[in-house]
Amino acid sequence: MKKIDVCLSPDLIGLYDLSGKAVVVVDILRATSCITTALAHGVKSIIPVATLDEAREYKKKGYFIAGERNGQQVEGFDLGNSPFSYMDESLKGQSVVATTTNGTMALDKSRSAEQVIAGTFLNIESVKSYLVNGNSDVLIFCAGWKGKVNLEDTLYAGALVDELSDDFEPDCDAPLVASAVYKEAKTDMPGFLKNSSHVKRLHRLHIEKDIEFCLKRDEYDVLPILKGKELVKL
Amino acid sequence: MKKIDVCLSPDLIGLYDLSGKAVVVVDILRATSCITTALAHGVKSIIPVATLDEAREYKKKGYFIAGERNGQQVEGFDLGNSPFSYMDESLKGQSVVATTTNGTMALDKSRSAEQVIAGTFLNIESVKSYLVNGNSDVLIFCAGWKGKVNLEDTLYAGALVDELSDDFEPDCDAPLVASAVYKEAKTDMPGFLKNSSHVKRLHRLHIEKDIEFCLKRDEYDVLPILKGKELVKL
Repeated sequence: MKKIDVCLSPDLIGLYDLSGKAVVVVDILRATSCITTALAHGVKSIIPVATLDEAREYKKKGYFIAGERNGQQVEGFDLGNSPFSYMDESLKGQSVVATTTNGTMALDKSRSAEQVIAGTFLNIESVKSYLVNGNSDVLIFCAGWKGKVNLEDTLYAGALVDELSDDFEPDCDAPLVASAVYKEAKTDMPGFLKNSSHVKRLHRLHIEKDIEFCLKRDEYDVLPILKGKELVKL
Repeated sequence: MKKIDVCLSPDLIGLYDLSGKAVVVVDILRATSCITTALAHGVKSIIPVATLDEAREYKKKGYFIAGERNGQQVEGFDLGNSPFSYMDESLKGQSVVATTTNGTMALDKSRSAEQVIAGTFLNIESVKSYLVNGNSDVLIFCAGWKGKVNLEDTLYAGALVDELSDDFEPDCDAPLVASAVYKEAKTDMPGFLKNSSHVKRLHRLHIEKDIEFCLKRDEYDVLPILKGKELVKL
């Protein structure tokens, strides 16, 4: 049976061997949800970069750039980190360079893996069928919040462990932790998440609509996969 | 209201500010369970050290030494990491120098805190009343397994968060994660833990009795607290 493991924080990724693995990067609120939405709405690719300055360099070359820090759009950037902004007609066929507080850093730390894909509730069925049909062991890599474990990414990790339980067995304890969290939350995910620090933070920024959207299941049949430095539709 | 947070792995402890905090170090299987049992049975103090060599130096000075690596007693050491071995009459009034794979390292990383205590199911009520009656915010510090998050320490963190919920509010998401795990597990903790990697590892070493004992609630009314370099009964 193939193995599945979960890394609950980017600060723990050094403990995991990524070689030969399919890594599912998760930043539910909101980087991977944005990436999935963007590709579903015709954006050609997302180029994740770690720093604001790297993104600004791309801007000079004519790229659209998306920048988020601490939940808010960075001044001088074309986009922030709301999935709705990625539905804009003007972005169709374009590449967007994106940098966020947590998600793009996790993508950056995944590059030594065999495959890197973006996981969200919006495309959980596409993620599942890709992993079930592949030969690789799986590591679900939660982006967290500034190194700390967060609730929404742990919750998604548990949902995916659950979906994959017929084909994958847990390699350590973190999948069992995530799975227990999901079992507690699954009947009312928005209610369960309302006490999470990130959701409270986003509520202060009045982005309830984003949160509600990012928890929708199977909105898109799209799998973002890293090819070179770009995330493209498989 | 006082705050409570949970650090799920020693590799994340750098993200937390320990100053002014009461830190509850947790290594259910089995370091903190051993320490609590030892003090309850009349051992004078436990001196946690990080390395086997440090412990061997104490042996030359006439101390009893306890050493565990990967679940097993280290050759040449008087004790391993079973709570039952700490009940021995010969240890009464003695100081025992102890080094384990995870627990003593977590104790070592906690020294900048205001108070450091050892938390277990065996003394959860004593831990609770100490924290409720104190003025400090609390950090529950899970020893984990070689840097990774483990199930039994997360479960205990959740149980303690639950016990303290009238007096402490969560400072971030990790208490909510731990609390959800506890809610899933509480009606059958041994059954819930049987799939954990550490319990499987210990089963291979035939220490089922230790596991069963370490999950007992309120066996002792004893609070181990760090004074200088020694854990003593409060």
